[in-house]
Amino acid sequence: MTVGEVGEFEVIARITARLGQAKHVILGPGDDAAVIAAADGRVVATTDLLVEGRHFRTDWSSGYDIGRKAAAQNLADIAAMGAVPTALLVGLACPPATAVDWIDLLTDGLRDESALTGAAVAGGDVVRAEQVMVAVTALGDLQGRAPVTRSGARAGEVVAVCGRLGWAPAGLAVLGRGFRSPAAVVAAHRRPEPPYAQGPLAASAGATAMIDISDGLTQDLAHIAAASGVAIDVQRAALEVPQRLIDVGAALGVDPYVWVLGGGDDHALAATFGGPVPPGWRVIGSVAAGDGVTVDAEPYVAGHDHFL
Amino acid sequence: MTVGEVGEFEVIARITARLGQAKHVILGPGDDAAVIAAADGRVVATTDLLVEGRHFRTDWSSGYDIGRKAAAQNLADIAAMGAVPTALLVGLACPPATAVDWIDLLTDGLRDESALTGAAVAGGDVVRAEQVMVAVTALGDLQGRAPVTRSGARAGEVVAVCGRLGWAPAGLAVLGRGFRSPAAVVAAHRRPEPPYAQGPLAASAGATAMIDISDGLTQDLAHIAAASGVAIDVQRAALEVPQRLIDVGAALGVDPYVWVLGGGDDHALAATFGGPVPPGWRVIGSVAAGDGVTVDAEPYVAGHDHFL
Repeated sequence: MTVGEVGEFEVIARITARLGQAKHVILGPGDDAAVIAAADGRVVATTDLLVEGRHFRTDWSSGYDIGRKAAAQNLADIAAMGAVPTALLVGLACPPATAVDWIDLLTDGLRDESALTGAAVAGGDVVRAEQVMVAVTALGDLQGRAPVTRSGARAGEVVAVCGRLGWAPAGLAVLGRGFRSPAAVVAAHRRPEPPYAQGPLAASAGATAMIDISDGLTQDLAHIAAASGVAIDVQRAALEVPQRLIDVGAALGVDPYVWVLGGGDDHALAATFGGPVPPGWRVIGSVAAGDGVTVDAEPYVAGHDHFL
Repeated sequence: MTVGEVGEFEVIARITARLGQAKHVILGPGDDAAVIAAADGRVVATTDLLVEGRHFRTDWSSGYDIGRKAAAQNLADIAAMGAVPTALLVGLACPPATAVDWIDLLTDGLRDESALTGAAVAGGDVVRAEQVMVAVTALGDLQGRAPVTRSGARAGEVVAVCGRLGWAPAGLAVLGRGFRSPAAVVAAHRRPEPPYAQGPLAASAGATAMIDISDGLTQDLAHIAAASGVAIDVQRAALEVPQRLIDVGAALGVDPYVWVLGGGDDHALAATFGGPVPPGWRVIGSVAAGDGVTVDAEPYVAGHDHFL
């Protein structure tokens, strides 16, 4: 059964029937708009598009994995502000030939990843297009805290990370060479595991700036450096390069630091701290006067631009 | 200059530079997420996708018009809950060959339509895709009122509308036959003019159910009928059919009631009232026990499904 066979309203009914609930969602799918609690009088909001062939491949990832990933990358942006996710809105564009079973899986993935954070899908839209595209908006609650932006880093502070670095890009490299294993890195590409709870915890612990690492460690730290008007140096020796990444790098002929320093999509969190770093965070660098990002005091260029 | 030539970050910088501001936007574009005021402790949220060739044609509408329309259809959904728009988030997917000038126009349209309601674009995403797609999420503030859903209509109430009916579909029909005039109906297709302020006013005046008319009057009233568990009858004689639509219908050989009763995209508001109807609203029908929508007590089928 395809989307074209069952029609828009039936697809929406199937999606709605599979969704979970969340205490923040006052009015869920089925009306002109949803109503979501925003207890502290502010709402944190972010949106990302995932495009077939660009951000996912349906032969490399299941519908379920794509749903998990689409939710994860938006929920991670909420966490990176120091907020707790409350709800997702999901726009789905797909060709009429899309299998409704695939959309069921996508829905389940969105639901299950949201549930990890206490959020739920509160609304959405389904339209016809030539290419599958998933547009996710995530909302979140700051619980009375100030948002942790990219602009608060100051000279003398440390840079710390929480979460995995290099696993998702290693998995992408493996898939790109036609392999399906090692399973751990391939799974990391298919379903990132952002440390959601650590965003609000870092905010409470005094993080001065924070970012979700989506494009690559050095590139995302460069956003903090630019917004804060500071220089950031990453100490290579402080980075954890797991044996698994060393092994995969050896097998593919790739320096695993390329993945750790420049690879995206793991959705780790990076933050700067003027005081003690909370448990679960690893100090990997320092903030100084100046501009730009260096690695062991040398320039480093990595990351990618989606159009270049 | 194309998007592919200038790159993702330059496109985002250009968009951001053109955006307006709104008092509700506490933290705007440029961080992992935006922060928007949600003064009454709740936020109303809705999302819609517009796809090139499906919801707009770049040879029929300018980038500016498409921006206006993309914003309008989401802002109208916020108004239909009885809320006041506060912010938009915009995801843009486009091919690398897309002209940055076109994106400038799109941005201006989004900005200007939002400004009509006091809202502003607070964040977004730009990605590469084969087809232009605009994903808009709108947020709104209920200002302490209960949301007006689709499920509150009761037998004995009246159905009223505010805003234009049939103009946008007449414009689409004109363009579809290869004409560019009359200008008024073509403009109505390119830039709907939802009566935003009337949503909150109707809520304050005691509207029991409300909906934004996007798919067609009878089809959208059917959503109210189904959600409320009532029957709705529309009285044809109560509908206003302007001379302009009669003339266009005569020229094209189309009964203008097809546009007024079944055509979408004008984003008028329809609501049910148990008491007096506020100024600016026209009573067009009645609510009774039963189910479904009739016109002059006869069945009427119209509207469209995006996939069938």
